[in-house]
Amino acid sequence: MIAIAVLGHGTVGSGVLEVFNKNHASIIEKAGEEMEIKYILDRREFPDLPYHDKFVKDFEVILNDPDVRVVVEVMGGLDPAFDFVLRSLKAGKNVVTSNKELVAVHGAELLAAAHETNVNFLFEASVGGGIPILRPLSQCLSANRIVEIAGILNGTTNFILTKMFREGVAFEDALALAQKLGYAERNPAADVEGDDACRKVCILASLAYGRHVYPQNVHTEGITHISAEDVHYAEAWGGVIKLIGRVKKLDDGRLFAMVSPAFISRESQLATVDDVFNGIMVRGDAIGDVVFYGRGAGKLPTASAVVADVIDAVKHLAARKYIDWEPAKDGYVCDYLEVPASMFVRVTARSRTEALRSVRGLLGNVTELVCPGVENEAAFITPMLPEGEIVRALQALRALDYPILSTIRVLDY
Amino acid sequence: MIAIAVLGHGTVGSGVLEVFNKNHASIIEKAGEEMEIKYILDRREFPDLPYHDKFVKDFEVILNDPDVRVVVEVMGGLDPAFDFVLRSLKAGKNVVTSNKELVAVHGAELLAAAHETNVNFLFEASVGGGIPILRPLSQCLSANRIVEIAGILNGTTNFILTKMFREGVAFEDALALAQKLGYAERNPAADVEGDDACRKVCILASLAYGRHVYPQNVHTEGITHISAEDVHYAEAWGGVIKLIGRVKKLDDGRLFAMVSPAFISRESQLATVDDVFNGIMVRGDAIGDVVFYGRGAGKLPTASAVVADVIDAVKHLAARKYIDWEPAKDGYVCDYLEVPASMFVRVTARSRTEALRSVRGLLGNVTELVCPGVENEAAFITPMLPEGEIVRALQALRALDYPILSTIRVLDY
Repeated sequence: MIAIAVLGHGTVGSGVLEVFNKNHASIIEKAGEEMEIKYILDRREFPDLPYHDKFVKDFEVILNDPDVRVVVEVMGGLDPAFDFVLRSLKAGKNVVTSNKELVAVHGAELLAAAHETNVNFLFEASVGGGIPILRPLSQCLSANRIVEIAGILNGTTNFILTKMFREGVAFEDALALAQKLGYAERNPAADVEGDDACRKVCILASLAYGRHVYPQNVHTEGITHISAEDVHYAEAWGGVIKLIGRVKKLDDGRLFAMVSPAFISRESQLATVDDVFNGIMVRGDAIGDVVFYGRGAGKLPTASAVVADVIDAVKHLAARKYIDWEPAKDGYVCDYLEVPASMFVRVTARSRTEALRSVRGLLGNVTELVCPGVENEAAFITPMLPEGEIVRALQALRALDYPILSTIRVLDY
Repeated sequence: MIAIAVLGHGTVGSGVLEVFNKNHASIIEKAGEEMEIKYILDRREFPDLPYHDKFVKDFEVILNDPDVRVVVEVMGGLDPAFDFVLRSLKAGKNVVTSNKELVAVHGAELLAAAHETNVNFLFEASVGGGIPILRPLSQCLSANRIVEIAGILNGTTNFILTKMFREGVAFEDALALAQKLGYAERNPAADVEGDDACRKVCILASLAYGRHVYPQNVHTEGITHISAEDVHYAEAWGGVIKLIGRVKKLDDGRLFAMVSPAFISRESQLATVDDVFNGIMVRGDAIGDVVFYGRGAGKLPTASAVVADVIDAVKHLAARKYIDWEPAKDGYVCDYLEVPASMFVRVTARSRTEALRSVRGLLGNVTELVCPGVENEAAFITPMLPEGEIVRALQALRALDYPILSTIRVLDY
């Protein structure tokens, strides 16, 4: 009998219990071993739950019980999750987590610890919730050189953007609705500022290219500045705005990674990923584009990914899975200003013709965009230029008394 | 050094060599073992290829070489593929195949043989080409009860249907174009009659529900009878026609499986899967809907899935992967006529009003569909009824001198 300990009984933790109990027979069958959830660590008490006798408050109980072979960390945050996970791995216990912050910040160190004691550290649920993405990336696509990964990685912001497009509501109203429906936290910063997507990009990048990427090395922009006018222009252009996290390997071996809102064409497979859904495109040199689509968050989807990792860990108690990446390295992630981009830009201008003459003098052959009903401004899409050049041109434009109203990258997926 | 033998040097076989050679360093690194392709079995000779010295004509050479630990079967068809694969497994060699006919017809037997000698029999490339689907289904979604699977599993028919919708061409012309572009064989029956999709449904069903399903037990309809009028009606209704393969477990434990063209709404994630692409939706009780999208066929996508399986086999030389299913059982797959369906129907009728009055007498509250420019017929969508009841009502309608022009199921994904 394999004993499992679950750290944290919040949304995901209670979902893990629910999935584990509901599909118990088939889970045991798939794992090929009897197993039970022996402990649940939480500061709170839940006397009314049928499994109230499993709750403990002291992590040492779990750490010192040799029967516990798998520790499930679903507390979130770094403290005390990092300490608990590291000590579990060092004690020779397998760890499964859904904690993207933990993996994005300490992934390399924790994988090294798992390597040391020959146990598994699995975190499928940390990216894309229940959507299978990390395992397909490391296993099914292993014969490919991964050219690029781009995805809608955060359901909250995607819900907000979908509402802004479908119903023409402002960002603030869409956010308020997301909060009311429980899709956004009371403090929504981690979602709307792009941090959550950034952590997932770090995990995807680290796994796909084998070297740890830290959140602070990924240029990240959120969606708080997206306006109703931006939405109108995107529609006139023939597309939508999505918060896209992406990573690709440059020819010189360095990595480019970014999280930002972007115009994408209605024809793109990512354009139809709406509401709280996530969609992740992986571009391989042999396979071409593969897209994974589903619920990127939520209690049961995330819990089902956690439990699938538990099954996998139990099946591989003897033989460790091969997930590994190297520690981070200075200069590995390039400065995004070096990389060519095409940018949608809006400036305040009394005369559109004059403004565009100035713009063309600075940026060359831009494409003008016109949006019925929007006045006193000029909008255009720049050619592909290193982003630093675009930034300098926009500074010059500002100096010519054309205040910049918005800049949104235009992506071609 | 692990030796690999490739059986067959056709499209997929030469692709396997290409992928293996191109990404050799990273493949070796991921497998964690040195490996080489030692033999290629083919009746033909390829003196101009750089690896011409690897070709052999006698399978016994491969079978009797103890260095060969992995046999890659990419010949297609059953004879001699079945014999070669079975003997390889019995000789304790791991086998990787892309051969959907082989797995659909002999999967249970071959998995049992692999079980016997404790080796791996892997076939990710047999469904969805390069799209990861079988491994996510058996591993990542293992904590879910799989409610249903539905997918666009055949690229050739999807290309034809896409052309019929986008460009209004007739089936025959779209097929001729597919043949010209190399997407369809000179004898296109296996694709357009639905047999290829049926084999993939059998593999998905067997894997998801743990018991072998044979092609002859899956009711299969192709797309040869889809007309320009059907396309117009589907558009008027607000959707498209796709060839959908699907399987689900009924409450009584039996299985329902079918391949048929179907109306699906434009809002469906499967509706935007166009051209030669495949899209497979898996509905789990915890995860909800997950969709996998990508190139379902083609030399390099398929080859990359084969090579990924080779890597996995080499990583698991000591510990066998846990893919298994039970032999088929009489009565396990239900008669499709028992299962409720909603059907789009067109009948020849001089008076639409009179025809619909007769229809409503037989089928209850049908929804009339009108398509501008189409005359002398009536079209409607039936309520959800056991398909046998619909069939009987249509027979009665025919007896009332309303010849049936077409029947296409309406699905709600």
